Amino acid sequence: MKQIKIAQYGLGPIGVETLRLAAGKSWAEIVGAIDIDPAKVGRDLGEFTGIRKLRGRVVHGSLEELHGKPDVIFHTAVSKFKAAFGQLEPIAREGISVVSSCEELVFPQLREPLLSRRLDRLCKRTGARVVGTGVNPGFVMDLLPLCLTGVSCDVRAVHVQRVVNASTRREPLQRKIGSGLAPRRFRRLLREGRAGHAGLKESLALLAHCLGWNVGKIKESGDAVVADHDIRTRYLRVRKGETCGLHQRAEVRMGGKVALSLDLRMYLDAPNPHDAIQIEGQPPLNLVLPGGVAGDQATVAALVNTAPRLLQAKPGLILITDLPVPHVACT
Amino acid sequence: MKQIKIAQYGLGPIGVETLRLAAGKSWAEIVGAIDIDPAKVGRDLGEFTGIRKLRGRVVHGSLEELHGKPDVIFHTAVSKFKAAFGQLEPIAREGISVVSSCEELVFPQLREPLLSRRLDRLCKRTGARVVGTGVNPGFVMDLLPLCLTGVSCDVRAVHVQRVVNASTRREPLQRKIGSGLAPRRFRRLLREGRAGHAGLKESLALLAHCLGWNVGKIKESGDAVVADHDIRTRYLRVRKGETCGLHQRAEVRMGGKVALSLDLRMYLDAPNPHDAIQIEGQPPLNLVLPGGVAGDQATVAALVNTAPRLLQAKPGLILITDLPVPHVACT
Repeated sequence: MKQIKIAQYGLGPIGVETLRLAAGKSWAEIVGAIDIDPAKVGRDLGEFTGIRKLRGRVVHGSLEELHGKPDVIFHTAVSKFKAAFGQLEPIAREGISVVSSCEELVFPQLREPLLSRRLDRLCKRTGARVVGTGVNPGFVMDLLPLCLTGVSCDVRAVHVQRVVNASTRREPLQRKIGSGLAPRRFRRLLREGRAGHAGLKESLALLAHCLGWNVGKIKESGDAVVADHDIRTRYLRVRKGETCGLHQRAEVRMGGKVALSLDLRMYLDAPNPHDAIQIEGQPPLNLVLPGGVAGDQATVAALVNTAPRLLQAKPGLILITDLPVPHVACT
Repeated sequence: MKQIKIAQYGLGPIGVETLRLAAGKSWAEIVGAIDIDPAKVGRDLGEFTGIRKLRGRVVHGSLEELHGKPDVIFHTAVSKFKAAFGQLEPIAREGISVVSSCEELVFPQLREPLLSRRLDRLCKRTGARVVGTGVNPGFVMDLLPLCLTGVSCDVRAVHVQRVVNASTRREPLQRKIGSGLAPRRFRRLLREGRAGHAGLKESLALLAHCLGWNVGKIKESGDAVVADHDIRTRYLRVRKGETCGLHQRAEVRMGGKVALSLDLRMYLDAPNPHDAIQIEGQPPLNLVLPGGVAGDQATVAALVNTAPRLLQAKPGLILITDLPVPHVACT
């Protein structure tokens, strides 16, 4: 496989893991990393990430300071496309392609049609490709159910459920789902869009787009899951009656019935974690992933595995469904 | 969606169902059908297939007699690429693309590297694309496990099992799996390659190809499943001790352990029919399709759903894994 020059944008936990996985691939040549955090800029990249072969390089504060032009930048910095745009535009202007974990980039035209067109036009002019992916959004609730419809004669409805046992996950996720907050307070944060999982609407819109369905308004709801017993994880404690996680749901109706529904539960001590997909159609199809697909590892894998296929695609702001079937991009 | 002119090559049960499904799609314009069986040639296509809107057209004996040049031909005629080649070459020479159910076409370079190169060169010259697909090979044992590895950091082994309850399937399949034969006789037919499921080796070779694994020799084995009770289906009877189905397996070893294994059981009254995939890797992944993916309907769907995506691909003899993620191609 042809060598691909890689840079990492964003050195949070996902960014560092992405860099670590990429550094182990024979096709990847790491040219550097960027982070806007002044506390990280200037530090030795090898020391900061624990990746020996990156020793002697420093963390840069901007694209211009990077030595050598990368082919692909892994971008793991923000959830909102509006916030990502300002970071991605200078990259695309240099003709550098991007694989991003930005949740809204899985279907950017949903919330930002104008910015999407602008970035798409820029990419087409410079030869860059920009795509958003991950495990959710990017796989479990969109790409995998779509792939399954490939053996359907017709599809009337698609339903996906994901149950994550947050007790087995990292501390930031355990906090993000509201652990320990008063349910009233967490519900208000959810309502105000200041807490919760990003990307549910994007997964649903991507499904509708590929199925050719004009679905109209997406209904989204979020609620606190309240602990029915005292819970103690490696990182925190939650008492009975406090928030121990979230339950989010997005759905659309067509002809009076639910045509697409995505149901996500992430909470501490969730029993029977799994991902499940039901395709109502001809033939009917049921898929179960007992245990589910592990969040962080799978997102990191989705990012790295996308790079080689991305460089084969036509320039533009593209969707994961425009790329060839995903698969692990070997050592 | 742009209109696609479609013709059907082969009017067996799968071919007729393919034509029926395609005829219902708003993007498909059926221009005609071809069959080499003199008993079918000249008959009214609408009457023969039961599709009203095809009335007044006749079944043709060859490509030259077809009125209007199709964009895509659905080819459902033979299992062996060597046999398909003589039918596909004249089609590709006209620059017409082909979606074929020919099992060996899922990875044609395995058995016929020379013919594959010849057909690929021809396609590139004329602008045609030729691809083989179906449910198995083409989905359950190759494309779906590959898609799942898209969220894997690294993969050490892939195992797939498919259990089909043949009692619920059509008569030709119930006969194909040896129902009612003496086990000794059926085992001999399997050994001689005169019976059994086609395409297991192709699925395995496609997996290895996409994973970038140089696997060497594929070990394939086949055995009769012997009825442990008297069985009566809609079409036939099998007595205890007679063959009621088959068990086929293909595997390769790497470094002393089984790295890829595909295990197929198709027999009458098989309990718990299902498809299952295990990815040994980081993270480990398990997928189950309880009930399995229905054979004939899913193959027909895979063929028809591939047509729109195929026409976006570069010309050549291509693999399903070169195409974007499959999904139902709506009405």
